[in-house]
Amino acid sequence: MSNAVVLLSGGLDSTTLLAVARADHTVFALSFRYGQRHQHELVAAQKIARDSGVARHVIVDIDLRTFGGSALTADIEVPKDRDVSTMESGIPVTYVPARNTIFLAFALAYAETVSASDIFIGVNAVDYSGYPDCRPEYIDAFERMANLATRGAVEGTTPVRIRAPLLGLSKAEIIKRGTALGVNYAQTTSCYDPNVDGAACGRCDACLLRKKGFRDAGIADPTRYSV
Amino acid sequence: MSNAVVLLSGGLDSTTLLAVARADHTVFALSFRYGQRHQHELVAAQKIARDSGVARHVIVDIDLRTFGGSALTADIEVPKDRDVSTMESGIPVTYVPARNTIFLAFALAYAETVSASDIFIGVNAVDYSGYPDCRPEYIDAFERMANLATRGAVEGTTPVRIRAPLLGLSKAEIIKRGTALGVNYAQTTSCYDPNVDGAACGRCDACLLRKKGFRDAGIADPTRYSV
Repeated sequence: MSNAVVLLSGGLDSTTLLAVARADHTVFALSFRYGQRHQHELVAAQKIARDSGVARHVIVDIDLRTFGGSALTADIEVPKDRDVSTMESGIPVTYVPARNTIFLAFALAYAETVSASDIFIGVNAVDYSGYPDCRPEYIDAFERMANLATRGAVEGTTPVRIRAPLLGLSKAEIIKRGTALGVNYAQTTSCYDPNVDGAACGRCDACLLRKKGFRDAGIADPTRYSV
Repeated sequence: MSNAVVLLSGGLDSTTLLAVARADHTVFALSFRYGQRHQHELVAAQKIARDSGVARHVIVDIDLRTFGGSALTADIEVPKDRDVSTMESGIPVTYVPARNTIFLAFALAYAETVSASDIFIGVNAVDYSGYPDCRPEYIDAFERMANLATRGAVEGTTPVRIRAPLLGLSKAEIIKRGTALGVNYAQTTSCYDPNVDGAACGRCDACLLRKKGFRDAGIADPTRYSV
């Protein structure tokens, strides 16, 4: 099995991604403490990585509050109770400037040092309608750049692939895929604004999309919501 | 004057770059404390940024020792006394995996939050013979990716340009250009392995190329060397 780097946030998408990647790769998981208000996701990521038997799990510290510009990293309120049917148009205030580019850049460094052939990122159809750095054309452009950036580009070794296997999937399809792979979604967390004991708010975009995903999939939602 | 982000290490190249950028832009400087053994360069960067009247200077903390793989970030010896005429072939051990991709990714986040139209990076002909992420084709690919990554890509605002004005220049040509722009090279530092009081070793690749640059330019080298 070849090595792969998997971007793991501890959320529903990236935990499904990890299960997909593990089928064919030895996994090196990568998470970020980036100043996100929902830093509790790292507790989930650590537990998930441990239980999944990854080869190594690295949490990188970067403080994106330095730049701000997002409800996740600056003093901007997280929207609540939005209409799920319209929230996917336009760029939400929870968009973090260049976040996926930064995450993938670190993943590329990690991949180079562990000789990984693949980098997995959990972007999907729900995200890419709103976030510029979740669109397929962005992922393709990053892969092209990555293959000019590293030692392999000069020495002619195996190129690195940016893998986004959830790209065309809805939240419900992701949940079905993960359930078939044995993912325990009770371990995952999606909420942008949990309360102090880690319960999901149930009202931010991430919670509303997650609820709808389980509903559409016809699978019981194991999430602990505060409302 | 439009805003520009300038990657400033405190070295000879990036300080010249800052002088070039300042002629046409309001400058937002960006440096990194990345676990480099030559962290003294940040003292130089801070002084240079202050004296140059930049709008803001941000130093981002990231620990690339997590991944290692370089003489600058791991316990690998910095080569000394190499032959200048041959050191430019192959990838040197001072290459840091994906470093420029990580630096440019942060610059992209910074650029987006301050509405900068340009990101300046000091890669040049001396570097790109050895470092994969200093080559013109890499810079072009990063720019293409960047213009799919951010808010502007979706909202159709001004694209961001990755500017590498030193790209075709030798070290001597850079020194001549900077001297004409009034750069005080005594403030800059290039050494990969300085002694405890900050004096340059005079023997690492960076020192040898710097010395040769001043010699070829016919300009007195103001560097304080320990040998």
